[in-house]
Amino acid sequence: MTFVTGEGITELAVKRWATASPPRLADLMTGLVRHLHQYVEEVGLTEEELWDGFDWLEEAGAFKGGRREVVLASLVFGVNAKVVESTSRCSPRTPATPPGPREVFDAPEVPFGYDVSRGIAGEPLYIVGRVVDQDEEPVRDAVLFAWLPDAGGIYHEDALRGKYRTREDGSYCIRAIVPTGYSVPLDGPVGRLLSRTTISPWRPSHIHFLIDESGFERVNTELFPEGGAYVDTDAGLITKKALVVPFVEHPAGTTPDGGSIDRPYRRADYDFVLQRKS
Amino acid sequence: MTFVTGEGITELAVKRWATASPPRLADLMTGLVRHLHQYVEEVGLTEEELWDGFDWLEEAGAFKGGRREVVLASLVFGVNAKVVESTSRCSPRTPATPPGPREVFDAPEVPFGYDVSRGIAGEPLYIVGRVVDQDEEPVRDAVLFAWLPDAGGIYHEDALRGKYRTREDGSYCIRAIVPTGYSVPLDGPVGRLLSRTTISPWRPSHIHFLIDESGFERVNTELFPEGGAYVDTDAGLITKKALVVPFVEHPAGTTPDGGSIDRPYRRADYDFVLQRKS
Repeated sequence: MTFVTGEGITELAVKRWATASPPRLADLMTGLVRHLHQYVEEVGLTEEELWDGFDWLEEAGAFKGGRREVVLASLVFGVNAKVVESTSRCSPRTPATPPGPREVFDAPEVPFGYDVSRGIAGEPLYIVGRVVDQDEEPVRDAVLFAWLPDAGGIYHEDALRGKYRTREDGSYCIRAIVPTGYSVPLDGPVGRLLSRTTISPWRPSHIHFLIDESGFERVNTELFPEGGAYVDTDAGLITKKALVVPFVEHPAGTTPDGGSIDRPYRRADYDFVLQRKS
Repeated sequence: MTFVTGEGITELAVKRWATASPPRLADLMTGLVRHLHQYVEEVGLTEEELWDGFDWLEEAGAFKGGRREVVLASLVFGVNAKVVESTSRCSPRTPATPPGPREVFDAPEVPFGYDVSRGIAGEPLYIVGRVVDQDEEPVRDAVLFAWLPDAGGIYHEDALRGKYRTREDGSYCIRAIVPTGYSVPLDGPVGRLLSRTTISPWRPSHIHFLIDESGFERVNTELFPEGGAYVDTDAGLITKKALVVPFVEHPAGTTPDGGSIDRPYRRADYDFVLQRKS
């Protein structure tokens, strides 16, 4: 069926949106229009399904449950992770992960070995290692921002976050608690979709890190305990092999920072590998 | 970069959403996920662009300007028209067009030649013809629901709409006013996007029709005056060649229904061709 202009509908729509400026917007819009049309044709989308889609998008867009449901949808579709994967230039040894919907990259600077748990209950955890470049050269004075949820999956403003500065040899030592996983929220339109699948809504235990040093690719990433629950079924499709590390049990006694502890703790060893900007 | 499960991210996301039930939902979701991922990769979507997209979707989804901005977006992307084109089984001689965002398919039944303008100002218009099947056989007693906007682009609840019943020979006669085109609303996120293109925001003059007869494919369609403004640049990508008809000028005198009129009027001749269900 042709238009007055004699064109097919997809060609016409693409031609129109190709007039967008700047050129980058034209690329984004024509690609979007083309994929939407291809999708409609491929699945034979019906009018009823289209209007169900409108209802769903409006519900998600206007969702007021204290979170961004649209971001959550993109997370569980793996789109957030796909964007990072296709644009990040970080080292594959410390790959980047997508930022969460409410990430605020701020925290106090704290000393080597400082306990950011600040009394919040949990099994003590030391994370130790170095920040190095792709040639294993230490990156000194780098700021390693770490943050993690408590045992209930809640992030705190005044605890479980800190900026650690690397020493001369690139080394750092974090003290926190072993994090726990949490389910993505299920009381909205995304949860309703997930309930019609066998997809696990859980994110595995993880600790967030950000390193943003001049001269290096910025890396926003996460570490996951090896063998932890949901590590192979991450609802956010974020867990990468290179980011899974053993959280080894240690008896009470000497701690990695040269101090001592009166109960058992876990220790994770990890070197963050930064990619120099070319 | 592989996951703990050893898969690529798109394969993993598609595999997950393939578990949706019923199977139709699995088809819709896997197709959606696959296209979203392909789009991200093709255009090299950046994190900043992704988050701009979230902002845009939330603004559109929650838009409260008395209309459904998400539907409007889909209209100007040509998605609504594409859905109709790829699923409708109507006759190509009277192709279907997508429904609008607020269409209510109800109106009083009115007699042959009845003037639905009910005093609303405008150039008088007669639309006359027959409702026939694909073999030119008349469809008698068919209900032809017609509705149109006034000169300001506004639809009324108590005027400019009526249900006409065809006579023995399939004939009908509508009296209304010559409709005018209108711009899609530009005060929201869709208007902001359009403003960065050369796309005309105008829909050409049109009259809506719905015929939903047992045994025939339901057809929701529009007729457009030949040579009318914007007929070749319809913002909704709806205007099809088969739906453009001359609105011929006639002097005051006899009207198509055998009555008379004291001023000039226009006349459009059109036969609606229904497709029998197979």
